[in-house]
Amino acid sequence: MNYPNGMKKINLTHNITYSNRGMSLENDLNLSNKYYEERDLAYIYKKPTPIKIVKVNYKISKIEEAYFDTPSTTDYNGLYKGKYLDFEAKETKSKTSFPLDNIHPHQIKHIKNITKNDGICFLIIRFTTLNLTYLLRAENFIEYINSTERKSIPLSYFNEKAYLIKDSLKPRIDYLKIVDKIMEV
Amino acid sequence: MNYPNGMKKINLTHNITYSNRGMSLENDLNLSNKYYEERDLAYIYKKPTPIKIVKVNYKISKIEEAYFDTPSTTDYNGLYKGKYLDFEAKETKSKTSFPLDNIHPHQIKHIKNITKNDGICFLIIRFTTLNLTYLLRAENFIEYINSTERKSIPLSYFNEKAYLIKDSLKPRIDYLKIVDKIMEV
Repeated sequence: MNYPNGMKKINLTHNITYSNRGMSLENDLNLSNKYYEERDLAYIYKKPTPIKIVKVNYKISKIEEAYFDTPSTTDYNGLYKGKYLDFEAKETKSKTSFPLDNIHPHQIKHIKNITKNDGICFLIIRFTTLNLTYLLRAENFIEYINSTERKSIPLSYFNEKAYLIKDSLKPRIDYLKIVDKIMEV
Repeated sequence: MNYPNGMKKINLTHNITYSNRGMSLENDLNLSNKYYEERDLAYIYKKPTPIKIVKVNYKISKIEEAYFDTPSTTDYNGLYKGKYLDFEAKETKSKTSFPLDNIHPHQIKHIKNITKNDGICFLIIRFTTLNLTYLLRAENFIEYINSTERKSIPLSYFNEKAYLIKDSLKPRIDYLKIVDKIMEV
Protein backbone atom coordinates (compact mmCIF):
# COMPACT_ATOMS: atom_id res chain seq x y z
CA MET A 1 0.00 0.00 0.00
CA ASN A 2 1.35 3.43 -0.87
CA TYR A 3 0.82 6.62 1.04
CA PRO A 4 1.32 9.45 -1.39
CA ASN A 5 2.77 12.10 0.89
CA GLY A 6 4.22 14.11 -1.94
CA MET A 7 1.05 13.96 -3.96
CA LYS A 8 -1.03 16.15 -1.75
CA LYS A 9 1.02 19.27 -2.44
CA ILE A 10 0.75 18.68 -6.15
CA ASN A 11 -2.96 18.17 -5.84
CA LEU A 12 -3.50 21.37 -3.95
CA THR A 13 -1.50 23.60 -6.25
CA HIS A 14 -3.07 22.09 -9.34
CA ASN A 15 -6.59 22.47 -8.09
CA ILE A 16 -7.75 24.50 -11.04
CA THR A 17 -7.00 21.83 -13.59
CA TYR A 18 -8.68 19.02 -11.64
CA SER A 19 -12.25 19.85 -12.49
CA ASN A 20 -13.76 17.20 -10.22
CA ARG A 21 -11.61 17.85 -7.18
CA GLY A 22 -14.31 19.93 -5.52
CA MET A 23 -16.80 17.04 -5.59
CA SER A 24 -18.10 15.94 -2.23
CA LEU A 25 -17.59 12.44 -0.91
CA GLU A 26 -21.34 11.88 -1.08
CA ASN A 27 -21.43 12.82 -4.72
CA ASP A 28 -18.44 10.59 -5.48
CA LEU A 29 -20.12 7.67 -3.72
CA ASN A 30 -23.43 8.19 -5.49
CA LEU A 31 -21.65 8.14 -8.85
CA SER A 32 -19.69 5.04 -7.85
CA ASN A 33 -22.86 3.26 -6.73
CA LYS A 34 -24.51 4.20 -10.01
CA TYR A 35 -21.51 2.77 -11.84
CA TYR A 36 -21.78 -0.49 -9.88
CA GLU A 37 -25.53 -0.68 -10.48
CA GLU A 38 -25.26 -0.08 -14.23
CA ARG A 39 -22.82 -2.99 -14.45
CA ASP A 40 -25.03 -5.23 -12.29
CA LEU A 41 -22.20 -5.54 -9.73
CA ALA A 42 -23.87 -4.22 -6.59
CA TYR A 43 -27.01 -2.44 -5.46
CA ILE A 44 -26.05 0.09 -2.83
CA TYR A 45 -28.40 2.88 -1.82
CA LYS A 46 -28.07 6.08 0.12
CA LYS A 47 -30.87 6.31 2.62
CA PRO A 48 -32.50 9.71 2.49
CA THR A 49 -31.97 11.88 5.56
CA PRO A 50 -34.94 11.16 7.81
CA ILE A 51 -37.45 13.99 7.84
CA LYS A 52 -40.06 14.73 10.46
CA ILE A 53 -43.18 15.90 8.65
CA VAL A 54 -45.31 18.31 10.62
CA LYS A 55 -47.79 19.78 8.17
CA VAL A 56 -49.11 18.47 4.86
CA ASN A 57 -51.60 20.06 2.51
CA TYR A 58 -53.26 16.85 1.30
CA LYS A 59 -55.26 18.61 -1.41
CA ILE A 60 -52.09 19.31 -3.38
CA SER A 61 -49.84 16.68 -1.68
CA LYS A 62 -47.54 19.45 -0.53
CA ILE A 63 -45.40 19.22 2.59
CA GLU A 64 -45.55 22.66 4.18
CA GLU A 65 -43.59 22.10 7.36
CA ALA A 66 -40.93 19.51 8.07
CA TYR A 67 -37.57 19.20 9.81
CA PHE A 68 -34.41 17.17 9.31
CA ASP A 69 -34.11 14.33 11.81
CA THR A 70 -31.09 12.57 13.30
CA PRO A 71 -30.30 9.33 11.46
CA SER A 72 -30.36 6.19 13.62
CA THR A 73 -28.56 3.99 11.11
CA THR A 74 -25.74 4.45 8.64
CA ASP A 75 -26.25 6.30 5.37
CA TYR A 76 -25.63 3.50 2.90
CA ASN A 77 -26.70 -0.09 2.64
CA GLY A 78 -27.30 -2.67 -0.03
CA LEU A 79 -26.47 -5.91 -1.74
CA TYR A 80 -23.13 -7.22 -2.96
CA LYS A 81 -22.72 -10.85 -4.04
CA GLY A 82 -25.68 -11.94 -1.96
CA LYS A 83 -24.22 -10.30 1.13
CA TYR A 84 -25.55 -7.39 3.13
CA LEU A 85 -23.26 -4.38 2.99
CA ASP A 86 -23.58 -1.32 5.22
CA PHE A 87 -21.47 1.79 5.68
CA GLU A 88 -21.26 5.36 6.84
CA ALA A 89 -19.37 8.03 4.89
CA LYS A 90 -17.92 11.16 6.44
CA GLU A 91 -15.61 13.99 5.49
CA THR A 92 -13.33 15.92 7.78
CA LYS A 93 -11.22 19.00 7.16
CA SER A 94 -8.82 18.02 9.94
CA LYS A 95 -5.30 17.05 8.85
CA THR A 96 -4.56 15.00 11.92
CA SER A 97 -7.61 13.07 13.12
CA PHE A 98 -11.25 12.15 12.53
CA PRO A 99 -13.53 13.67 15.22
CA LEU A 100 -15.81 10.99 16.67
CA ASP A 101 -18.71 13.36 17.30
CA ASN A 102 -19.38 12.96 13.58
CA ILE A 103 -20.89 9.55 14.34
CA HIS A 104 -24.02 9.55 16.52
CA PRO A 105 -24.38 7.05 19.40
CA HIS A 106 -27.32 5.39 17.60
CA GLN A 107 -25.16 4.86 14.57
CA ILE A 108 -22.40 3.27 16.65
CA LYS A 109 -24.94 0.87 18.12
CA HIS A 110 -26.16 0.10 14.60
CA ILE A 111 -22.62 -0.55 13.37
CA LYS A 112 -22.03 -2.96 16.26
CA ASN A 113 -25.29 -4.83 15.57
CA ILE A 114 -24.60 -5.21 11.86
CA THR A 115 -21.08 -6.46 12.48
CA LYS A 116 -22.25 -8.97 15.09
CA ASN A 117 -24.80 -10.32 12.59
CA ASP A 118 -22.27 -10.95 9.81
CA GLY A 119 -23.06 -7.90 7.75
CA ILE A 120 -20.13 -6.34 5.92
CA CYS A 121 -19.80 -3.01 7.69
CA PHE A 122 -17.30 -0.17 7.45
CA LEU A 123 -16.71 3.57 7.42
CA ILE A 124 -15.47 5.58 4.46
CA ILE A 125 -13.64 8.60 5.83
CA ARG A 126 -12.20 11.35 3.66
CA PHE A 127 -9.62 13.79 4.95
CA THR A 128 -10.56 16.49 2.46
CA THR A 129 -7.58 18.76 3.09
CA LEU A 130 -5.15 15.88 2.58
CA ASN A 131 -7.26 14.40 -0.21
CA LEU A 132 -7.04 10.96 1.38
CA THR A 133 -10.00 8.57 1.52
CA TYR A 134 -9.93 5.52 3.78
CA LEU A 135 -12.08 2.48 4.29
CA LEU A 136 -12.02 1.50 7.97
CA ARG A 137 -13.63 -1.82 8.82
CA ALA A 138 -16.30 -1.70 11.53
CA GLU A 139 -14.29 -4.25 13.54
CA ASN A 140 -11.31 -1.86 13.72
CA PHE A 141 -13.54 1.12 14.42
CA ILE A 142 -15.21 -0.67 17.35
CA GLU A 143 -11.84 -1.91 18.59
CA TYR A 144 -10.61 1.67 18.65
CA ILE A 145 -13.56 3.24 20.47
CA ASN A 146 -13.57 0.40 23.01
CA SER A 147 -9.89 0.92 23.76
CA THR A 148 -9.79 4.65 24.35
CA GLU A 149 -11.53 7.68 25.79
CA ARG A 150 -10.24 9.89 22.99
CA LYS A 151 -12.73 11.95 21.05
CA SER A 152 -11.11 11.38 17.68
CA ILE A 153 -9.29 8.75 15.65
CA PRO A 154 -5.78 9.90 14.70
CA LEU A 155 -4.64 9.69 11.10
CA SER A 156 -1.94 7.27 12.20
CA TYR A 157 -4.64 4.74 13.14
CA PHE A 158 -6.03 4.98 9.63
CA ASN A 159 -2.56 4.47 8.19
CA GLU A 160 -2.10 1.44 10.36
CA LYS A 161 -5.53 -0.26 10.20
CA ALA A 162 -7.57 1.18 7.33
CA TYR A 163 -7.38 0.71 3.58
CA LEU A 164 -6.46 3.72 1.47
CA ILE A 165 -8.89 4.05 -1.45
CA LYS A 166 -7.02 5.34 -4.45
CA ASP A 167 -8.64 7.97 -6.63
CA SER A 168 -9.95 6.63 -9.87
CA LEU A 169 -12.27 7.77 -12.60
CA LYS A 170 -14.62 4.85 -13.14
CA PRO A 171 -15.79 4.33 -10.55
CA ARG A 172 -14.59 7.34 -8.65
CA ILE A 173 -14.27 5.47 -5.34
CA ASP A 174 -13.73 1.79 -6.05
CA TYR A 175 -14.46 0.58 -2.55
CA LEU A 176 -15.76 -2.81 -3.70
CA LYS A 177 -12.19 -3.73 -4.65
CA ILE A 178 -11.38 -3.46 -0.95
CA VAL A 179 -14.57 -5.24 0.07
CA ASP A 180 -13.40 -8.15 -2.10
CA LYS A 181 -10.21 -8.32 -0.04
CA ILE A 182 -12.19 -8.19 3.18
CA MET A 183 -14.54 -10.97 2.03
CA GLU A 184 -11.63 -13.23 1.12
CA VAL A 185 -10.34 -13.23 4.71
CA MET B 1 -48.34 7.86 9.51
CA ASN B 2 -50.68 10.81 9.24
CA TYR B 3 -53.94 10.18 7.47
CA PRO B 4 -56.49 12.84 6.64
CA ASN B 5 -58.87 13.48 9.51
CA GLY B 6 -61.82 11.46 8.24
CA MET B 7 -59.97 8.14 8.16
CA LYS B 8 -58.56 8.46 11.64
CA LYS B 9 -62.03 8.81 13.14
CA ILE B 10 -63.29 5.65 11.43
CA ASN B 11 -60.35 3.65 12.73
CA LEU B 12 -60.92 4.80 16.27
CA THR B 13 -64.62 3.95 16.44
CA HIS B 14 -64.20 0.48 14.94
CA ASN B 15 -61.13 -0.39 16.91
CA ILE B 16 -63.06 -1.87 19.79
CA THR B 17 -64.36 -4.98 18.04
CA TYR B 18 -61.58 -5.78 15.58
CA SER B 19 -58.61 -5.57 17.89
CA ASN B 20 -55.93 -5.96 15.23
CA ARG B 21 -58.03 -5.36 12.16
CA GLY B 22 -57.50 -1.61 12.11
CA MET B 23 -53.71 -1.91 12.10
CA SER B 24 -52.09 -1.22 8.80
CA LEU B 25 -49.68 -3.67 7.22
CA GLU B 26 -46.95 -1.06 7.51
CA ASN B 27 -47.54 -0.68 11.21
CA ASP B 28 -47.57 -4.47 11.71
CA LEU B 29 -44.30 -4.78 9.81
CA ASN B 30 -42.64 -1.96 11.73
CA LEU B 31 -43.58 -3.64 15.01
CA SER B 32 -42.35 -7.01 13.73
CA ASN B 33 -39.05 -5.51 12.61
CA LYS B 34 -38.66 -3.86 15.99
CA TYR B 35 -39.31 -7.23 17.62
CA TYR B 36 -36.61 -8.86 15.46
CA GLU B 37 -34.17 -6.04 16.18
CA GLU B 38 -34.68 -6.15 19.93
CA ARG B 39 -33.87 -9.86 19.87
CA ASP B 40 -30.82 -9.34 17.64
CA LEU B 41 -32.38 -11.59 14.96
CA ALA B 42 -32.51 -9.25 11.98
CA TYR B 43 -32.02 -5.61 11.10
CA ILE B 44 -34.71 -4.66 8.61
CA TYR B 45 -35.52 -1.03 7.87
CA LYS B 46 -38.32 0.79 6.15
CA LYS B 47 -36.88 3.32 3.75
CA PRO B 48 -38.57 6.65 4.18
CA THR B 49 -40.75 7.75 1.27
CA PRO B 50 -38.45 9.82 -0.92
CA ILE B 51 -39.17 13.51 -0.65
CA LYS B 52 -38.28 16.24 -3.11
CA ILE B 53 -37.25 19.27 -1.10
CA VAL B 54 -37.95 22.58 -2.83
CA LYS B 55 -37.53 25.25 -0.18
CA VAL B 56 -35.57 25.27 3.07
CA ASN B 57 -35.24 28.03 5.62
CA TYR B 58 -31.68 27.30 6.66
CA LYS B 59 -31.72 29.76 9.56
CA ILE B 60 -34.13 27.55 11.47
CA SER B 61 -33.47 24.31 9.50
CA LYS B 62 -37.10 24.23 8.47
CA ILE B 63 -38.32 22.61 5.24
CA GLU B 64 -41.02 24.93 3.91
CA GLU B 65 -41.87 23.26 0.63
CA ALA B 66 -41.45 19.63 -0.36
CA TYR B 67 -43.30 16.89 -2.24
CA PHE B 68 -43.59 13.12 -1.99
CA ASP B 69 -41.61 11.37 -4.70
CA THR B 70 -42.09 8.00 -6.44
CA PRO B 71 -39.92 5.29 -4.86
CA SER B 72 -37.47 3.59 -7.24
CA THR B 73 -36.74 0.67 -4.94
CA THR B 74 -38.73 -1.47 -2.54
CA ASP B 75 -39.77 -0.16 0.85
CA TYR B 76 -37.85 -2.51 3.12
CA ASN B 77 -34.33 -3.88 3.16
CA GLY B 78 -31.83 -5.15 5.66
CA LEU B 79 -29.73 -7.90 7.12
CA TYR B 80 -30.69 -11.42 8.13
CA LYS B 81 -28.05 -14.03 8.96
CA GLY B 82 -25.44 -12.21 6.89
CA LYS B 83 -27.74 -12.16 3.87
CA TYR B 84 -29.29 -9.18 2.13
CA LEU B 85 -33.06 -9.17 2.41
CA ASP B 86 -35.36 -6.90 0.39
CA PHE B 87 -39.13 -6.66 0.09
CA GLU B 88 -42.12 -4.57 -0.84
CA ALA B 89 -45.33 -4.57 1.21
CA LYS B 90 -48.74 -3.71 -0.15
CA GLU B 91 -52.35 -3.88 0.91
CA THR B 92 -55.37 -4.33 -1.33
CA LYS B 93 -59.06 -4.16 -0.56
CA SER B 94 -59.85 -6.48 -3.47
CA LYS B 95 -61.19 -9.93 -2.56
CA THR B 96 -60.13 -11.56 -5.81
CA SER B 97 -56.79 -10.24 -7.02
CA PHE B 98 -53.81 -7.96 -6.38
CA PRO B 99 -53.69 -5.05 -8.88
CA LEU B 100 -50.24 -4.79 -10.43
CA ASP B 101 -50.36 -1.02 -10.80
CA ASN B 102 -49.50 -0.98 -7.10
CA ILE B 103 -45.92 -1.82 -8.03
CA HIS B 104 -44.06 0.81 -10.10
CA PRO B 105 -41.98 -0.25 -13.15
CA HIS B 106 -38.81 0.97 -11.37
CA GLN B 107 -39.61 -1.27 -8.45
CA ILE B 108 -40.12 -4.28 -10.72
CA LYS B 109 -36.69 -3.64 -12.27
CA HIS B 110 -35.22 -3.38 -8.78
CA ILE B 111 -36.84 -6.66 -7.71
CA LYS B 112 -35.38 -8.39 -10.78
CA ASN B 113 -31.89 -7.00 -10.10
CA ILE B 114 -31.89 -8.02 -6.46
CA THR B 115 -33.08 -11.53 -7.28
CA LYS B 116 -30.45 -11.94 -10.01
CA ASN B 117 -27.75 -10.92 -7.53
CA ASP B 118 -28.70 -13.50 -4.89
CA GLY B 119 -30.56 -11.14 -2.59
CA ILE B 120 -33.53 -12.64 -0.76
CA CYS B 121 -36.41 -10.76 -2.31
CA PHE B 122 -40.18 -11.03 -1.96
CA LEU B 123 -43.50 -9.21 -1.69
CA ILE B 124 -45.75 -9.17 1.35
CA ILE B 125 -49.32 -8.68 0.14
CA ARG B 126 -52.29 -8.29 2.43
CA PHE B 127 -55.85 -8.75 1.24
CA THR B 128 -57.32 -6.52 3.94
CA THR B 129 -60.98 -7.46 3.37
CA LEU B 130 -60.16 -11.18 3.60
CA ASN B 131 -57.61 -10.59 6.37
CA LEU B 132 -55.08 -12.77 4.53
CA THR B 133 -51.38 -11.88 4.30
CA TYR B 134 -49.09 -13.65 1.84
CA LEU B 135 -45.38 -13.75 1.19
CA LEU B 136 -44.75 -14.14 -2.54
CA ARG B 137 -41.17 -14.83 -3.57
CA ALA B 138 -39.73 -12.46 -6.18
CA GLU B 139 -39.01 -15.47 -8.42
CA ASN B 140 -42.71 -16.36 -8.53
CA PHE B 141 -43.73 -12.74 -8.94
CA ILE B 142 -41.41 -12.31 -11.94
CA GLU B 143 -42.52 -15.65 -13.38
CA TYR B 144 -46.11 -14.43 -13.22
CA ILE B 145 -45.61 -11.03 -14.83
CA ASN B 146 -43.44 -12.57 -17.55
CA SER B 147 -46.13 -15.12 -18.41
CA THR B 148 -49.16 -12.87 -18.73
CA GLU B 149 -50.53 -9.55 -19.89
CA ARG B 150 -52.98 -9.44 -17.01
CA LYS B 151 -53.02 -6.34 -14.84
CA SER B 152 -53.47 -8.19 -11.58
CA ILE B 153 -52.42 -11.36 -9.79
CA PRO B 154 -55.43 -13.51 -8.89
CA LEU B 155 -55.84 -14.77 -5.34
CA SER B 156 -55.63 -18.32 -6.69
CA TYR B 157 -52.00 -17.66 -7.72
CA PHE B 158 -51.21 -16.65 -4.14
CA ASN B 159 -52.88 -19.80 -2.85
CA GLU B 160 -50.83 -21.86 -5.26
CA LYS B 161 -47.40 -20.19 -5.10
CA ALA B 162 -47.19 -17.90 -2.09
CA TYR B 163 -46.82 -18.58 1.63
CA LEU B 164 -49.70 -17.61 3.88
CA ILE B 165 -48.39 -15.69 6.90
CA LYS B 166 -50.47 -16.58 9.92
CA ASP B 167 -51.46 -13.83 12.32
CA SER B 168 -49.50 -13.87 15.52
CA LEU B 169 -48.87 -11.54 18.39
CA LYS B 170 -45.11 -11.49 18.81
CA PRO B 171 -44.08 -10.69 16.23
CA ARG B 172 -47.27 -9.68 14.51
CA ILE B 173 -46.08 -10.85 11.07
CA ASP B 174 -43.49 -13.55 11.52
CA TYR B 175 -42.19 -13.48 7.95
CA LEU B 176 -38.68 -14.59 8.93
CA LYS B 177 -40.11 -18.04 9.68
CA ILE B 178 -40.93 -18.27 5.98
CA VAL B 179 -37.59 -16.76 4.95
CA ASP B 180 -35.94 -19.60 6.88
CA LYS B 181 -37.84 -22.10 4.72
CA ILE B 182 -36.82 -20.24 1.56
CA MET B 183 -33.15 -20.14 2.61
CA GLU B 184 -33.11 -23.89 3.26
CA VAL B 185 -34.04 -24.66 -0.35
